Amino acid sequence: MQRLIEGLHHFQSQVFGSQRELFERLAQGQAPETLFITCADSRIDPCLLTQSAPGDLFILRNAGNLVPPYGAVRGGEAATIEFAIAGLGVKDIIVCGHSHCGAMKGLLDPPPATAFPALSDWLSHAEATRRIMHEKYADRTGAEQLNVAIQENVLAQLENLRTHPVVASALAQDKLRLHGWVYKIETGEVFVYDPATRQFALAPTPPEAPAREERERVSVEV
Amino acid sequence: MQRLIEGLHHFQSQVFGSQRELFERLAQGQAPETLFITCADSRIDPCLLTQSAPGDLFILRNAGNLVPPYGAVRGGEAATIEFAIAGLGVKDIIVCGHSHCGAMKGLLDPPPATAFPALSDWLSHAEATRRIMHEKYADRTGAEQLNVAIQENVLAQLENLRTHPVVASALAQDKLRLHGWVYKIETGEVFVYDPATRQFALAPTPPEAPAREERERVSVEV
Amino acid sequence: MQRLIEGLHHFQSQVFGSQRELFERLAQGQAPETLFITCADSRIDPCLLTQSAPGDLFILRNAGNLVPPYGAVRGGEAATIEFAIAGLGVKDIIVCGHSHCGAMKGLLDPPPATAFPALSDWLSHAEATRRIMHEKYADRTGAEQLNVAIQENVLAQLENLRTHPVVASALAQDKLRLHGWVYKIETGEVFVYDPATRQFALAPTPPEAPAREERERVSVEV
Amino acid sequence: MQRLIEGLHHFQSQVFGSQRELFERLAQGQAPETLFITCADSRIDPCLLTQSAPGDLFILRNAGNLVPPYGAVRGGEAATIEFAIAGLGVKDIIVCGHSHCGAMKGLLDPPPATAFPALSDWLSHAEATRRIMHEKYADRTGAEQLNVAIQENVLAQLENLRTHPVVASALAQDKLRLHGWVYKIETGEVFVYDPATRQFALAPTPPEAPAREERERVSVEV
Amino acid sequence: MQRLIEGLHHFQSQVFGSQRELFERLAQGQAPETLFITCADSRIDPCLLTQSAPGDLFILRNAGNLVPPYGAVRGGEAATIEFAIAGLGVKDIIVCGHSHCGAMKGLLDPPPATAFPALSDWLSHAEATRRIMHEKYADRTGAEQLNVAIQENVLAQLENLRTHPVVASALAQDKLRLHGWVYKIETGEVFVYDPATRQFALAPTPPEAPAREERERVSVEV
Amino acid sequence: MQRLIEGLHHFQSQVFGSQRELFERLAQGQAPETLFITCADSRIDPCLLTQSAPGDLFILRNAGNLVPPYGAVRGGEAATIEFAIAGLGVKDIIVCGHSHCGAMKGLLDPPPATAFPALSDWLSHAEATRRIMHEKYADRTGAEQLNVAIQENVLAQLENLRTHPVVASALAQDKLRLHGWVYKIETGEVFVYDPATRQFALAPTPPEAPAREERERVSVEV
Ligand SMILES: [Zn+2]
Ligand SMILES: [Zn+2]
Ligand SMILES: [Zn+2]
Ligand SMILES: [Zn+2]
Ligand SMILES: [Zn+2]
Ligand SMILES: [Zn+2]
Repeated sequence: MQRLIEGLHHFQSQVFGSQRELFERLAQGQAPETLFITCADSRIDPCLLTQSAPGDLFILRNAGNLVPPYGAVRGGEAATIEFAIAGLGVKDIIVCGHSHCGAMKGLLDPPPATAFPALSDWLSHAEATRRIMHEKYADRTGAEQLNVAIQENVLAQLENLRTHPVVASALAQDKLRLHGWVYKIETGEVFVYDPATRQFALAPTPPEAPAREERERVSVEV
Repeated sequence: MQRLIEGLHHFQSQVFGSQRELFERLAQGQAPETLFITCADSRIDPCLLTQSAPGDLFILRNAGNLVPPYGAVRGGEAATIEFAIAGLGVKDIIVCGHSHCGAMKGLLDPPPATAFPALSDWLSHAEATRRIMHEKYADRTGAEQLNVAIQENVLAQLENLRTHPVVASALAQDKLRLHGWVYKIETGEVFVYDPATRQFALAPTPPEAPAREERERVSVEV
Repeated sequence: MQRLIEGLHHFQSQVFGSQRELFERLAQGQAPETLFITCADSRIDPCLLTQSAPGDLFILRNAGNLVPPYGAVRGGEAATIEFAIAGLGVKDIIVCGHSHCGAMKGLLDPPPATAFPALSDWLSHAEATRRIMHEKYADRTGAEQLNVAIQENVLAQLENLRTHPVVASALAQDKLRLHGWVYKIETGEVFVYDPATRQFALAPTPPEAPAREERERVSVEV
Repeated sequence: MQRLIEGLHHFQSQVFGSQRELFERLAQGQAPETLFITCADSRIDPCLLTQSAPGDLFILRNAGNLVPPYGAVRGGEAATIEFAIAGLGVKDIIVCGHSHCGAMKGLLDPPPATAFPALSDWLSHAEATRRIMHEKYADRTGAEQLNVAIQENVLAQLENLRTHPVVASALAQDKLRLHGWVYKIETGEVFVYDPATRQFALAPTPPEAPAREERERVSVEV
Repeated sequence: MQRLIEGLHHFQSQVFGSQRELFERLAQGQAPETLFITCADSRIDPCLLTQSAPGDLFILRNAGNLVPPYGAVRGGEAATIEFAIAGLGVKDIIVCGHSHCGAMKGLLDPPPATAFPALSDWLSHAEATRRIMHEKYADRTGAEQLNVAIQENVLAQLENLRTHPVVASALAQDKLRLHGWVYKIETGEVFVYDPATRQFALAPTPPEAPAREERERVSVEV
Repeated sequence: MQRLIEGLHHFQSQVFGSQRELFERLAQGQAPETLFITCADSRIDPCLLTQSAPGDLFILRNAGNLVPPYGAVRGGEAATIEFAIAGLGVKDIIVCGHSHCGAMKGLLDPPPATAFPALSDWLSHAEATRRIMHEKYADRTGAEQLNVAIQENVLAQLENLRTHPVVASALAQDKLRLHGWVYKIETGEVFVYDPATRQFALAPTPPEAPAREERERVSVEV
């Protein structure tokens, strides 16, 4: 905790100054174009990963990057999605799973429900993933099994996402696109789902890297 | 979206290399000491704000940084909290509200329930905040009203947090501390709740700033 | 009621005899290949419409032919779907809406919630339909508006259906197909959704009508 | 599926013509006098069994012909019942169980909850039946046990039905009657519950069978 | 509060002594024969009213003496009823309404849902009462309307009670009887529902008053 | 039951007369200053214990004196608390556990969920208590374990109580005080929680016992 307090101080005294303009502008209002849904896992930093600045990503995080189907829980996920689309007009939603995900490990090898009652309940929203693993990939084991589960779970959550009325309506109007990603912590790679091939593949190299120069990530500019 | 793909590429080609060792170590497992609960608002970057590195903060984010009381929703919040404490053994939980919070604006001035049904439901978990504003601070208006609501809401969510069995038990064993923060976007300041004075006050300046040097934030090292 | 008792008697004394063999065989067990989901509307007779015999169709009916997303209600829809797929191994699911649907009228022009509290709640599972009508088809009125709503609702319920784990897993294994139908009461026509054109079109004329002769509908044989 | 498409075609080209008048009239509106609640089982055709025509029966079907008590699920059963009584003014409600019911077998001999989680949840609304079987009929086994369970379950669901406000109010005003039936697939017989004797007995032979002649079942007329 | 502390002291020093034997025996275990369900209203003292001693009545109290149907809330009512019957084997359940009931006033004339959100929700379990008042007794007003509502509500809650599996099973085994009472505060009278006449009538005078002498109420003996 | 009918008669003919004035006044309205929450256990008589008269205590009773956190069940507890504070303006809330509590025994040694499904669900609101017992007091057994659980449960329920908006708001305005009690049946003693020492201790002897004389308990006056 002491380290975090120091971090606040360091941010205030050393970092904030160079970003003052951005933050003062943001205080007037946010206009993110993307809703980024990912796991609560400490190893994921969505801004670092996508080299985004404050104001770029509206971020929903929970254990396992799950999106309960609409109506399944009257919880934070539905409200956050609704706010992002109907309130802020985001144009893209990314569901980003990741390697070594503890929640997915828990799905494949459930912890005792007496010790983790809330987690057990929560993983019922990944029951489609569990069933697909059990019925389609019964022969997979170990790391391969976990990796398949992580990918299938991203797809299952995208299906869940489609039942949210704001998502369904924006899709029907061609105002929104959904994306499935898997982030590999140990290599920094991101695999993107391609509906055409029904496969995850390495994120494509962008054609014009130079364009990137014009807009650096805030924390890099520090 | 194009910008994010470029960001991934930039991260991979320019940033990851210098952090490879950290990420390879993290791939073996995470051991965060803090659960950081904050709003989905795009203007908040918990890692930037606390100058934390990947692996430091287990992060739960939703619209309004709400924590429904235990049992109120079988949702992501309870599971994420349970995983953080019973699974990872975090020692501190920070509930961090922020200035200009759209969810708190929605609490004080509810959007039409037909347009935002999920958000309306969700804000019922901040009903204590709403009631306190209505009954105790009926005379406040405008920015002052919003700021009080943001602070009271952090306190209300801390009460909700105490009903979670993993929290209650860790507190009973003196293994966990709860913290209430409010982040002011336009100044980069963080106000911390002090139970003794029952007031929020600027985060204290840490005594030994030099210690900070030893452990830089990843993104700064880039 | 008197008429129904008479009907039972007539069935027993005049109809059952010629079907005895079928019913005795069915008493050993059912093996339907199709789950037919339609409205409770009295004007729909799925067996008549599809010229099916007892044993052919596993039938789920409720007001509005809704399928709440998985987890949204711990109700009859999820259990019936699960039983149909995991218990009976059905290969096709048809969601069949219909013209002049009272539930869809109620969705477009909600009845007072005090008089219809349960129906109001229930229609929340067609909230995606309502939102699409409101945002995409705001210019439609009258009969045209109702017809579009009936079609969009079939599609919305198909999305909801995909979140059910048994459905998701059977689809992932290519063991199940989903179909969207709209039955027009006044003409006896059925319109089938074509994912390729993203349109509903009249059910295609089957190539070999003669094949039909081999297997008559039970009630026709009477 | 091919067979069903052929059936649609056959219905359209061969059957609909002779019923055109009925269907065109029904397109103006329905006025069923009975709500028929039965199992999704493919072997039950309520219209065939009662020799009813389109327009006669408002039909609710799910696995096990269960009616959760009011408020127990915000699902299709409550809405369909409410619509039938408050919207259509039906005068009779029949809860019709049947021999060889798979749901009742599942109640007596629960399938694994991991394979049938939704069904397990759903059967909680037949918990009264299960408890009665366990406590009052512990000595019954096999087919006899199943038959008693099927009968007791119809009675339990009638009790559940009474908690629905529209039912309670219509009963208090003597505008509605409730009926418990069990349909025996292999013989085509229907057993009706008699509150006076507290027994199920074969449906009584109607006094004037000739009256039946005046109104044939649609599918018979084909 | 000071008065209550004084009351505790008075009880301890002046009252407990003469009842020591009873309380020491009760510490070994309770064996109440009756579950008494009544309103939280401060004017009702079930023990005083029935001249019962500690150990006689298992008592469930909430605003409006409501009993949600089984499964409608996973709350205290179902658990208390289950414990009373399956755990303690009570033989009678009394649902006791009362004159001037604030909850019933709230049902007939709903308080603002923003000020009383939980009460508004809770009264949905008396929706059958409300609907009966609205549809059957629309001509009643004032005190008469309230009194009818209080009586009808007792009957509605008895119906709800019958859906609880432990109740249904005990009734099926003739091990339990249900009773509907209304207590009139200003006269001390109790009106008992008579299923034969379908009326509430003054509790009958017991034949042998002398028998009463043998077993005095504890507080009277003080 | 015969005894209770006799009790009613005895109350009416022998007791009510001397209290007529009080009851007639109470019929005009109640104004209790305290909400007393305790177990349904037959051995507890809150009025006897605190020597209170009708009109003094608003009383909520259920198995285990549990108070689910706000939103956890849409049940009687939340509504009763809301009515007590927002409707009646009570100034004190007492949560009173007791020795030999069957619900707490069930928490420590769960009964079979098939026999007690509702109780098992209900005890999830004492999950914090269970977890504290398991993690902090794993070394306690027998009567000592039960006594600690009873005390810890009172504290856990006080935390749950704080999440109710009416409670949170009244506390924020210093209009309400919360109290934790444990009643020892065999000695008639009450132990009161002292937040300063974080211990339960015998209720303090009130300074001026004479004051008590002015206001006798109704049942004593009989
Ligand atoms: Zn993860
Ligand atoms: Zn915010
Ligand atoms: Zn319809
Ligand atoms: Zn069946
Ligand atoms: Zn009352
Ligand atoms: Zn107890």
